[in-house]
Amino acid sequence: MLIAKTPIFAGCLRFGVVNVRRVRFSVSSNMAKSKFEYVRNFETDDTCLRNCYIVVRLDGRNFHRFSEQHNFTKPNDNRALGLMSRSARSVMEDMEDVVIAYGQSDEFSFVFKRNSTLFRRRASKLMTHVTSQFSSSYVFYWREFFGEQPLLYPPSFDGRVVLYPTNHNLRDYLSWRQADCHFNNLYNTVFWTLVQTGGLSTAQAEDRLKGTVAADKNEILFSEFNINYNNESALHKKGTTLIWTKQNETVTKCIKVSNEEEEKEVSVIRSRRRVQAHYCDIIGEQFWDEHPDILEDDAH
Amino acid sequence: MLIAKTPIFAGCLRFGVVNVRRVRFSVSSNMAKSKFEYVRNFETDDTCLRNCYIVVRLDGRNFHRFSEQHNFTKPNDNRALGLMSRSARSVMEDMEDVVIAYGQSDEFSFVFKRNSTLFRRRASKLMTHVTSQFSSSYVFYWREFFGEQPLLYPPSFDGRVVLYPTNHNLRDYLSWRQADCHFNNLYNTVFWTLVQTGGLSTAQAEDRLKGTVAADKNEILFSEFNINYNNESALHKKGTTLIWTKQNETVTKCIKVSNEEEEKEVSVIRSRRRVQAHYCDIIGEQFWDEHPDILEDDAH
Amino acid sequence: MLIAKTPIFAGCLRFGVVNVRRVRFSVSSNMAKSKFEYVRNFETDDTCLRNCYIVVRLDGRNFHRFSEQHNFTKPNDNRALGLMSRSARSVMEDMEDVVIAYGQSDEFSFVFKRNSTLFRRRASKLMTHVTSQFSSSYVFYWREFFGEQPLLYPPSFDGRVVLYPTNHNLRDYLSWRQADCHFNNLYNTVFWTLVQTGGLSTAQAEDRLKGTVAADKNEILFSEFNINYNNESALHKKGTTLIWTKQNETVTKCIKVSNEEEEKEVSVIRSRRRVQAHYCDIIGEQFWDEHPDILEDDAH
Amino acid sequence: MLIAKTPIFAGCLRFGVVNVRRVRFSVSSNMAKSKFEYVRNFETDDTCLRNCYIVVRLDGRNFHRFSEQHNFTKPNDNRALGLMSRSARSVMEDMEDVVIAYGQSDEFSFVFKRNSTLFRRRASKLMTHVTSQFSSSYVFYWREFFGEQPLLYPPSFDGRVVLYPTNHNLRDYLSWRQADCHFNNLYNTVFWTLVQTGGLSTAQAEDRLKGTVAADKNEILFSEFNINYNNESALHKKGTTLIWTKQNETVTKCIKVSNEEEEKEVSVIRSRRRVQAHYCDIIGEQFWDEHPDILEDDAH
Repeated sequence: MLIAKTPIFAGCLRFGVVNVRRVRFSVSSNMAKSKFEYVRNFETDDTCLRNCYIVVRLDGRNFHRFSEQHNFTKPNDNRALGLMSRSARSVMEDMEDVVIAYGQSDEFSFVFKRNSTLFRRRASKLMTHVTSQFSSSYVFYWREFFGEQPLLYPPSFDGRVVLYPTNHNLRDYLSWRQADCHFNNLYNTVFWTLVQTGGLSTAQAEDRLKGTVAADKNEILFSEFNINYNNESALHKKGTTLIWTKQNETVTKCIKVSNEEEEKEVSVIRSRRRVQAHYCDIIGEQFWDEHPDILEDDAH
Repeated sequence: MLIAKTPIFAGCLRFGVVNVRRVRFSVSSNMAKSKFEYVRNFETDDTCLRNCYIVVRLDGRNFHRFSEQHNFTKPNDNRALGLMSRSARSVMEDMEDVVIAYGQSDEFSFVFKRNSTLFRRRASKLMTHVTSQFSSSYVFYWREFFGEQPLLYPPSFDGRVVLYPTNHNLRDYLSWRQADCHFNNLYNTVFWTLVQTGGLSTAQAEDRLKGTVAADKNEILFSEFNINYNNESALHKKGTTLIWTKQNETVTKCIKVSNEEEEKEVSVIRSRRRVQAHYCDIIGEQFWDEHPDILEDDAH
Repeated sequence: MLIAKTPIFAGCLRFGVVNVRRVRFSVSSNMAKSKFEYVRNFETDDTCLRNCYIVVRLDGRNFHRFSEQHNFTKPNDNRALGLMSRSARSVMEDMEDVVIAYGQSDEFSFVFKRNSTLFRRRASKLMTHVTSQFSSSYVFYWREFFGEQPLLYPPSFDGRVVLYPTNHNLRDYLSWRQADCHFNNLYNTVFWTLVQTGGLSTAQAEDRLKGTVAADKNEILFSEFNINYNNESALHKKGTTLIWTKQNETVTKCIKVSNEEEEKEVSVIRSRRRVQAHYCDIIGEQFWDEHPDILEDDAH
Repeated sequence: MLIAKTPIFAGCLRFGVVNVRRVRFSVSSNMAKSKFEYVRNFETDDTCLRNCYIVVRLDGRNFHRFSEQHNFTKPNDNRALGLMSRSARSVMEDMEDVVIAYGQSDEFSFVFKRNSTLFRRRASKLMTHVTSQFSSSYVFYWREFFGEQPLLYPPSFDGRVVLYPTNHNLRDYLSWRQADCHFNNLYNTVFWTLVQTGGLSTAQAEDRLKGTVAADKNEILFSEFNINYNNESALHKKGTTLIWTKQNETVTKCIKVSNEEEEKEVSVIRSRRRVQAHYCDIIGEQFWDEHPDILEDDAH
């Protein structure tokens, strides 16, 4: 709402053209525009409550159809999971206030640090920017994961913002998503084993699993197909957790030594944050003990 | 919030795997999950007020830099504008409740009909879905407009939702955007003519235009460069307006005639809605008189 | 959020004492206070959408118990209804942007003009102020309606804000409340006639009315008790509608005539707005035709 | 949103009349009503974020004028402060989820326990009910504090809801209000001493205090008027803090002894919660150490 006073055109080009919109000197000099400009006031404020973790969760839209049409392998397609992770990394690298992201299947959650002031904590800005960056990355990086298999149409994700006031609540949120991953993956593993190896129709497999609990499903896998679920891929069982890690890298720099004509080559150690993927349990304490910097203390 | 009773697996596959998440029978059968599931209740309702036009406006993020890096021509790049329109069409075809969309420069506004119940009018769903579809389309259709020139990185758009209660307010909103388009384009046309043809530096051009009104700019163009601004491209002066039009198309169908073995080939006329682009004034009455179906009467 | 610069103490006394709170020079001069002041930022904006009618509706809390304990006559207590109206008038006189108020039973709705900027359209301010003024008035004016019968404890009302974008919607809202009044009053009239005159127990009366429609109830009243419902009190059948009316009143003023020592007494006609109660139908057109100034045209 | 199935009239009388509104069987049986009932859907959800402290703060409207007209003594009127406290107690007794309330001057804050589900955490219900109960109590208990001095007109308070996610934030909120109390009271004490004892005009007193810090004000009081601010009333310096305390009370009960004709009188100890007022520091640790039950641990 601030009106830039001077100088008006501090290099604010847009589209290779001078963007006069944001500087708004138009207000006084253009009658027609100012007559309509009251419509701005219909925008509402959607600032997120302070000192809460802001979670943006994305979900694929109609991804059942999408996965069918792109021949995703069942029950898990590692190319598709890799592309999800790559897109999520793209979001984190663009918004460094994301302290942890967790994904499984066609969903991904991004957690902003509780005192983030990014986009002045406006929910709409946060969720649309995450969704946009993720969606354009998904198409952009498709070839890295699917090679020559063409992407048939632009996919879509929807997003939402949820706030969590305490560390306890936030960890329960992440635990909820990981428990969901586990639950679905166990089901799907048995289901598709019954179909692909056991020769059942999908209707028969569904029928077979009706009413079974986790122990029953483990038993079917083990006794009928000699599969120990514990040995299945951690990526599938646990989903993908992305966090920041600091890495030291040695770089060679040319440094101008004063009073000398020449530059000197020196090796310097530089600390750099990188996004790192984990495929481990995040429900228990161990992960959080090992990465104490992700969450801030509630007591400030 | 409804829990599906029966049948649980009515074909709700996701990722080629049975999606058990949405049917939620997990609640009772899975202790760990139900323990965490309370976190759902932290989601808030953001239903848009009924009987208002819902406008979702997208803006390119850092598009100045983006346009520089992709060598957009100045003051307008028709490839870029075409790609914006193509992406907007993709949004409209996906969400038929959008009755009109208007775009210029790196922004696009989508107007949902005032009684739309899409996504139960939830603001977050509406704005993230529009943003996602637009963003993935922008990358997907890039080659159609830029050919072999590579897209260097995934672009990003942010979005917002604004509600307008009356036709009058909505038309003022669209007028505001088109007046903005006109205003910027006149400025940019003179600015880049001064630079590209007149040989001024950008700083000199800026200086030259300081304090000038529309008439002054028209005069510079005409007297110094023999350019009549009125003859400039309508796309640049007026932006792009997308609406639905009904088109009749003749299709050949095979129809089974009762009591006969054979099918007959017949020609039938089918009415189909298509997105159509206009580059005309939408501030005055003419456009609205010619397309009376876009807006609903306030009086219901 | 503005900080008054100078002069700091322009007579802003509160409680007969200088109120330094609002002028906030404390920020710089008081360490302890500024350390805590960040908590202000947890307040959220709840501005009502522009160009919509703002309706604040109040409902009595536990008014069944309240009416029992204060021996309200059944089915309608004119003292109680009068006190509700008096309190509503007190609200309107305090907030002149209320263009119409409608009440029945223990509820009252207040409609603010669609472009009101009172309290900067903040929903919380509007609803709490209406509720507060109404509640304190209810106790304050109790004696005017109930005389020596004591008020046993302070009553309570809850409130809410609802927005209506068009005249059509607003009139449907008011129609909804008046249809509710009619519906309840017909039921209650028959019910209590069956009990008080017909000698039925409340359970028997309830049973008797189960499944009856309006025509049945009218018939019971007429054939069994010789009561024509149409002749019942308009206040009870239609509820109370409060609007502003302009009245001219002749007042005597002393005017100083220039060049003369003396003042002259003159009669002047002064126009004054007053709250006026109506007990008529507000669902049909007649009322609105007779009072065209209450609503603004949607088309602005 | 639940529709009562059976029995419809389980004693839900309102105003001594059967309240059919809430049971809503009207929907199907009353055409006119159902035609309008869609307007209900314009209400929006304003549920407060879970696991946050909900603070409702009330402020007197135009209380400077009110205090002048009712001759409040300066700088503090103990009758007025007592009436504020009495009204606040009335609110707490009505809503037992309020765990602490703090008041000073013409304002009072009510803190609901962080997991309260009162009114399903709807902000509008919470703030209007607090405001209503407070306002009607203020008028109701006026005579208890002001005796025969008449209340001239119904006073008004406005309210707001603010959420605080952690204990730390909540305590900072309360500290902010108490620091405000201290700051204002010190100023007002010196100001009115200069006027009432020192014989300065209000303008002179204002001038005298311009630019002074706390130490200066203490010095003026001590050296010029022999007043030690520390000995001033705790009520004025610290404001009023209301909390719940459990009290044991011995009550005599008649108990029927089995197999005997007679009842026996026995003394039983009954635990009862009462609202208790404190006039002490709530910024430091001591108060919170002494009352560990007011706040819940952030970690759940």
